[in-house]
Amino acid sequence: MAQQSSLPEHLSGLEPGFDVPALPGMSLAEVFTPALILDLDALERNLRRMSAFVQTHGMKLRVHGKMHRSVDVYRLQEQIGSATGICCQKVSEAEVFARAGVKDILISNEVRDPRMIDRLAQLPRFGGRIGVCVDAPEAVADLAVAVARHGFSLDVLVEYDCGAGRCGVQSAAEAVALARAIDEAPGLRYAGLQSYQGSVQHLSEFNTRRAAAAEAILRTTEVIGALREAGLPPETVTGAGTGSYTFETSSGVFTELQCGSYAFMDADYGQVLDIEGRRFDEGPWQNALFVLAQVISTARPGQAVLDAGLKSLTMESGLPLVFGHPDLTCTAVSDEHSQIRDPEGRLQIGNRLKLVPGHCDPTCNLHDYYVALRGDRVEAVWPVSARGRSC
Amino acid sequence: MAQQSSLPEHLSGLEPGFDVPALPGMSLAEVFTPALILDLDALERNLRRMSAFVQTHGMKLRVHGKMHRSVDVYRLQEQIGSATGICCQKVSEAEVFARAGVKDILISNEVRDPRMIDRLAQLPRFGGRIGVCVDAPEAVADLAVAVARHGFSLDVLVEYDCGAGRCGVQSAAEAVALARAIDEAPGLRYAGLQSYQGSVQHLSEFNTRRAAAAEAILRTTEVIGALREAGLPPETVTGAGTGSYTFETSSGVFTELQCGSYAFMDADYGQVLDIEGRRFDEGPWQNALFVLAQVISTARPGQAVLDAGLKSLTMESGLPLVFGHPDLTCTAVSDEHSQIRDPEGRLQIGNRLKLVPGHCDPTCNLHDYYVALRGDRVEAVWPVSARGRSC
Repeated sequence: MAQQSSLPEHLSGLEPGFDVPALPGMSLAEVFTPALILDLDALERNLRRMSAFVQTHGMKLRVHGKMHRSVDVYRLQEQIGSATGICCQKVSEAEVFARAGVKDILISNEVRDPRMIDRLAQLPRFGGRIGVCVDAPEAVADLAVAVARHGFSLDVLVEYDCGAGRCGVQSAAEAVALARAIDEAPGLRYAGLQSYQGSVQHLSEFNTRRAAAAEAILRTTEVIGALREAGLPPETVTGAGTGSYTFETSSGVFTELQCGSYAFMDADYGQVLDIEGRRFDEGPWQNALFVLAQVISTARPGQAVLDAGLKSLTMESGLPLVFGHPDLTCTAVSDEHSQIRDPEGRLQIGNRLKLVPGHCDPTCNLHDYYVALRGDRVEAVWPVSARGRSC
Repeated sequence: MAQQSSLPEHLSGLEPGFDVPALPGMSLAEVFTPALILDLDALERNLRRMSAFVQTHGMKLRVHGKMHRSVDVYRLQEQIGSATGICCQKVSEAEVFARAGVKDILISNEVRDPRMIDRLAQLPRFGGRIGVCVDAPEAVADLAVAVARHGFSLDVLVEYDCGAGRCGVQSAAEAVALARAIDEAPGLRYAGLQSYQGSVQHLSEFNTRRAAAAEAILRTTEVIGALREAGLPPETVTGAGTGSYTFETSSGVFTELQCGSYAFMDADYGQVLDIEGRRFDEGPWQNALFVLAQVISTARPGQAVLDAGLKSLTMESGLPLVFGHPDLTCTAVSDEHSQIRDPEGRLQIGNRLKLVPGHCDPTCNLHDYYVALRGDRVEAVWPVSARGRSC
């Protein structure tokens, strides 16, 4: 078990209203809980592993900013992870990265509110290349009006629904018509195709996942063929997630990967199996993201109650795992508490546990800071730069 | 269907980085989406209804601040809702309300980190009465040391586990021993008993819920008897939630109600039935809280995709409802999208829907602002004052 916390010798954090969970130099035992913590060694290993992959296979890596919403994590992905651009899902999120100097941003989503289109059309003023997806001709027209107003240009990609059933045009014919509309619109640059199969990513069994991805890739290939035939070959074909990127890579038709969760891992991706039958979190990737929590009640025999609940981790992908303690099971998470089954009563007040959240993206968005640790020591405290930016 | 949005005549919100979802005076159609919106008429009606109840029955109302985390909502609960105090679950959350001048705050939870106990012991400096719960003798000792350090006093309540199985002492004998320890500790005032049965609140069927609450009340009554016999009668007996407060009230042993969700309602409480068999959201209470979302894709026939996902509403209590449109069903919520089944294709790009989230507390904690509307007009924009304050 981790150490029990005691009053630190220095005074940091004892003032009412102190609202960061840690300061650089603190030990893990001194971090205020609940806190979103990063294991920097594990994070860097994950980034280097993906970097080696994309370099070996000649793929571009456009990491997903919606996962971490952090300028600092993105900078690390650029520095050691071969990231050459970022994708964001929302304009207000992209504004944060653009302001911070990120030079290649794709809004991998539809933007239809006229005011948000207007803000999107202003983003190139920060000096980078800005792209966006469309799945309707009216969107192309609205974008063209907005870029004319501001005098910049935008990259525009056709989004194709290759099986997830959410956004994206439904047929090759629609894709061709849309690509042509973009190509002909002043101020817009037809930049290619986005084709992302989100519902494949978490299929646990390797062959099942590969078959589902193959189906999506086949459909994408047909659309690319139609675009080529129409004289509109896509310069970029972008998509893929942490569960499927090896399949898109070997397809030969994708040029760019949009992986996000590989950097942090979570419990839902942890149960996904790789080609060798290893859990994602026990071979290819390491858990780098945790919610640090502390025992605040052991009044009920056989149970310990932690101080992290639904405001510190989200539950749509299931209960969190207790990292490093396969014998300890989280049985329930409520607004402010998690309950841990502890039949032998080993946990004591103040013991700290690292919870692996079910789903990293929305969990990160609950917190204002990442506490980045090197071993047992806080190396940095990073803001979740675009937290809450969902417009 | 709601109106389609267009560029407003004034320029508010067109600057990159504009980070409030609305300004007072805007119409509903101008609110940036996704946004957390309040129907002030419905909210005030809910507050007045609960006010009439507690006045009729002579109960104190200590509203739950963890639900809304908003100083402005609490002020309204004081002004028109008969609230005489607030409960918070965390010290950092209570600090926000204490700083704002709230004069009676109970931490309805265990606080065990020595630094957070130290901060708790400083809270009376803001001029109010501060209370906290305990379920272990060591907690009493730690609190006594901290109050001695700062020279204030704290109200301390014994927390009893009347059936929820989370925090709280397990027996009357433990409750008596703890009450005595508090009573004898310098600087601590033995203020009574907290007994809250959280797992009863959302039981849909009235008689089932009443029977489960009766069991919890019976156990609580036994503990109160033991405290009285020991010469430690509890001045305050506090607990109850929106699903059970009528039962605690009629028990004759509770003095104070801790309801929270009655003010806003949500989809999970909406399906709870009252004594007349009416849904909570169709008789006693009105939906006052919504996530306003906008259609951004209708590319897939029979479906509309909204711009609000898991970063705007939480899913541990299930899918959101589409307010005012029983014919429209939300079928999935992912990070940034919600999918609405729309077989007849009635929804168009830019249409705005009000989603009733499954669970109000963690949904509110996702947002930085409440947009408070009177009819179709934004009357106020309130910060979610204690958003993210979970230490």
